[in-house]
Amino acid sequence: MKYTAHINVMPLKELLDPQGKAVNNSLHNLGLTSVNNVRVGKHITLQLEAASKEDADKLAREACKKLLANQVMESFDFTLTEG
Amino acid sequence: MKYTAHINVMPLKELLDPQGKAVNNSLHNLGLTSVNNVRVGKHITLQLEAASKEDADKLAREACKKLLANQVMESFDFTLTEG
Repeated sequence: MKYTAHINVMPLKELLDPQGKAVNNSLHNLGLTSVNNVRVGKHITLQLEAASKEDADKLAREACKKLLANQVMESFDFTLTEG
Repeated sequence: MKYTAHINVMPLKELLDPQGKAVNNSLHNLGLTSVNNVRVGKHITLQLEAASKEDADKLAREACKKLLANQVMESFDFTLTEG
């Protein structure tokens, strides 16, 4: 069965996020001064072929741990949808 | 009131995504051969101060259009949560 994983990889809250800081400043310069606490990470979608949702979950988690997220600096979460 | 916007910026479906292709190949090399159709985009979270959810929606949309997404090559979507 086909599943789609929607994965978010974000810098850990304890760490500085220079890209987010830069975006924050740029938004202020554009007049959007009510914006704060910007953090920038990655969003990854991928399709999986798996026998069950549990297997798909396992595969997506493995992909995150082995390649997509550097767990020293990043956290990840994902959701699975069918199709 | 405080809102958090969870924004996804993804390369348009019609366009090649070389980063996604590279991740796809790397996952195959790591033995995750059931993975396909990888696409890599950005995930941005930001906090907004707005009078209502409609205002927050408007602000987040403006941020996406003015800075976060290049609409020639990328599409965006977002959700808002309180707090």
